[in-house]
Amino acid sequence: MDDTSLDSLVTPAALVDLDRVEANLLRVSAYAREHGLRWRPHTKTHKTVELAALQLQAGAAGVTVATPREAEVMSTVADDVLLAYPPVGTGRLTRLMALPHRVRLTVALDSREALEGLGRAATGAGRTVGVLVEVDLGMRRVGVQSPEDAVTLARAVASTRGVEYRGILFYPGHVRSPLAEQDAALREQSARLGALVEALDGAGLKPGTVSGGSTPTLWRSHEVAGLTEIRPGINVLNDRNSASVGACAWSECAYSVLATVVSTAVPGQAVIDAGSKALAKEEGFAPEGGYGALLDRPEVLVRGLSEEHGLLDLSATAWRPRVGERVRVVPNHVCTSVNLHERLHVLRGGARHATWAVAARGW
Amino acid sequence: MDDTSLDSLVTPAALVDLDRVEANLLRVSAYAREHGLRWRPHTKTHKTVELAALQLQAGAAGVTVATPREAEVMSTVADDVLLAYPPVGTGRLTRLMALPHRVRLTVALDSREALEGLGRAATGAGRTVGVLVEVDLGMRRVGVQSPEDAVTLARAVASTRGVEYRGILFYPGHVRSPLAEQDAALREQSARLGALVEALDGAGLKPGTVSGGSTPTLWRSHEVAGLTEIRPGINVLNDRNSASVGACAWSECAYSVLATVVSTAVPGQAVIDAGSKALAKEEGFAPEGGYGALLDRPEVLVRGLSEEHGLLDLSATAWRPRVGERVRVVPNHVCTSVNLHERLHVLRGGARHATWAVAARGW
Repeated sequence: MDDTSLDSLVTPAALVDLDRVEANLLRVSAYAREHGLRWRPHTKTHKTVELAALQLQAGAAGVTVATPREAEVMSTVADDVLLAYPPVGTGRLTRLMALPHRVRLTVALDSREALEGLGRAATGAGRTVGVLVEVDLGMRRVGVQSPEDAVTLARAVASTRGVEYRGILFYPGHVRSPLAEQDAALREQSARLGALVEALDGAGLKPGTVSGGSTPTLWRSHEVAGLTEIRPGINVLNDRNSASVGACAWSECAYSVLATVVSTAVPGQAVIDAGSKALAKEEGFAPEGGYGALLDRPEVLVRGLSEEHGLLDLSATAWRPRVGERVRVVPNHVCTSVNLHERLHVLRGGARHATWAVAARGW
Repeated sequence: MDDTSLDSLVTPAALVDLDRVEANLLRVSAYAREHGLRWRPHTKTHKTVELAALQLQAGAAGVTVATPREAEVMSTVADDVLLAYPPVGTGRLTRLMALPHRVRLTVALDSREALEGLGRAATGAGRTVGVLVEVDLGMRRVGVQSPEDAVTLARAVASTRGVEYRGILFYPGHVRSPLAEQDAALREQSARLGALVEALDGAGLKPGTVSGGSTPTLWRSHEVAGLTEIRPGINVLNDRNSASVGACAWSECAYSVLATVVSTAVPGQAVIDAGSKALAKEEGFAPEGGYGALLDRPEVLVRGLSEEHGLLDLSATAWRPRVGERVRVVPNHVCTSVNLHERLHVLRGGARHATWAVAARGW
C-alpha cells in the first residue's frame, strides 16, 4: 500500500483495527476450546471474505450466514456453512442449491412449508442438506413454540427426502441484559432447552447439534446446559452495544468510522460527515442514549443522526473541535454500519495495511 | 425485459412504481411553476441517474446532492448542481473540482474554514464555484446562528477568490409537524428569513437565491416569504413519514420493498425477509409507531426489525399470511431504505419494466 496514512481517505470511511481483530479471535477461540463448544461465527457482521478466512484460521468450525449472497461469498473460503435463516421462495432455494457440492450445508427453519420447499430443491439438486429445527427460547421472533411442536417438526425433517435432521438452533432472548445480570435468563434458557432435548430424545430425535449464542451472551454460553455450538457475529469487531452489556472492553472495539468535522456553527455540538448512511441509526443498549461514541473520547456521544450529518454532543467534554478535524466513531451496532460501506480500510499498528471489499452486501 | 412478473425476484427487492413517480413529478412541477419557485430536487433520496433525468425532464432547474459520489453521478445528466453540504477535506474538494467544467456548481457552507478550502481549490482548478451561506432557521443542525453572522460570512464569500456569492440556504426545522399544523412554524420561519434578508440587503449582499424546503413542508413553501427555490427529495417516491404528516396520500407512495413471509411460528405476528438491512430501522413520525406498513394493508405495521427479519403486527387485521406469501412494505424513510439496495426494480402498470442501478451509493 503506497499511502498508509489515514489522511488520504475521503470520509466517512470504515476502519478495522487488525491487531484488535486478532486479539478478539484468540479470546473467543480459546473460550470455545476451553468449554468444548463448536465456534461457528456469524459472518453477517462483516460480510467480508478476508475476515471469514481469519476466523477459520483461528479455529472456527465453519461459518454462519443469513442470506443467499452471504452463502455464496462465504462458500469461497468455507466448506461448512450454516444458513441460520429459512430459505423460502424459489429464488433463494435455487441459489442455495447452486453452492459448490464440497460445501456441507445446514439450514435452520421453523415451518413445514420451508421444510417441504427445501426437501424438493435438495432432491432436485441431488444433494443432502442438514436441517436444524429453530426453537424459540424467549426471543419471540421465529422458532417453534413448544417441545411438542419441535418434536413434530423434527419428525417431519427426519422423514423428508433430500434433508437430514441435525438438531436444533435458537437465538437467546436476553441479549440486552448486562453480562453480570444474566443469571435468571440463563437458568430459564437451560430449563427450556432441557425440556426440549428431553422431548426430542424421548421421540428418538436427540439433537446432535444444539446451536445458540450471540455476542451479548457469549462469555456465559458454557452455563447453558446442553449447548454444543456458539454463533457470535459481532464479537470479531465489537461495538458500543457489546461494550454496554459488558461483552467486551472499549479497547476491544476493532471497528470505527473515520469522520470529519464539517460544522461547529450550532453551540454545544459539532457536526461530522458520518450520518445514518455511514453509522446506521439504531437505538442502542446504553442507558445514556446516543447512536455511537468517539473511540478516543468515549464521553462524546453521537446524539443525533440525519443522513449525512452526525451531531456530536459536547456537553460532557471541554474539547472543542475545529472544522476539518477528524474523529473515529464506534457505532451502536457494527453489523448495520459495516453493511453501509463498500470496503473496510484495514489498519495494522495504526497505519493503513489493506483494503477489503464488503463483498456479501445485498441478497 | 424477458420476465415481467414480480414472482421471479429474490426478496427483499426494492420496487418503484413508475406511474406514481410520474404523477408525483407532475404535481410538484405544477406547484413550483404556479408559485414561481425554482424546483431543485435532492437526489439523495434515489441516488439513481434515471430518476434524476426524469426530474429534469419534468422541469427541475437542476439537482441537489450531498456527497462527492452523488455529485459525480448526477453530473452525468445535470448541468446545474447544488452541493447542499460543506465540502471539508482535500479528498472531497479534489473530487468536486474534477467535475466537468460544463457543470454550474454551487456549494452551501456555514464556516470560514470550509469557505477558505473551497476558494483555494476552485482557484487552483481554474473554476468559479457559487456559494450559498447556510443559515439555521430552527433545525439546530448546521447553519450560522444570526443575521450578523450571516452578513459576516457572506461578506467573506464575496471577497474570496474562486467563489461567487449566490445567496442563502436553509433546511426547515418543523419537518415532523403535520402539514395542517405548520402555521406558527411558517410564520416564524418567514420572520427569521425576513430579518436575514434585510440584514444582508442592508450590507449590499441581497441574496439572489433563497433555497429552502423539504418534502414534509413542500406544499406550503409558497407561504415562506422570500423563498426562491425548493429542494424536496422524498417527494418523488414518498414514504410512510410523508404520508403521516400529510405531505402525500398513501396512494402516492411509489416505493416499496417486496418481501416474503418466512415464519408464522410466533402467534400474533408474521416474519418477513425484509429487516433493517432492507428497510432501515428508523423511528417514524406516525404516532402508532412501527418501522413501516404494508402498501396494500396499511393497518399492518412492521413492529420490529432485526437485520434480516421484519415482524408484522397482525393485531389490527384478520389476515393470516402463510409462509411463502409476498407483501410490499412502505418504509418510514425512503432515502435510507433505497440506500440499502443495489438496484430498483421499476414497475409500469404493475409489471416489471426496467432495472435501475442505485449508482450514487457510498461517498
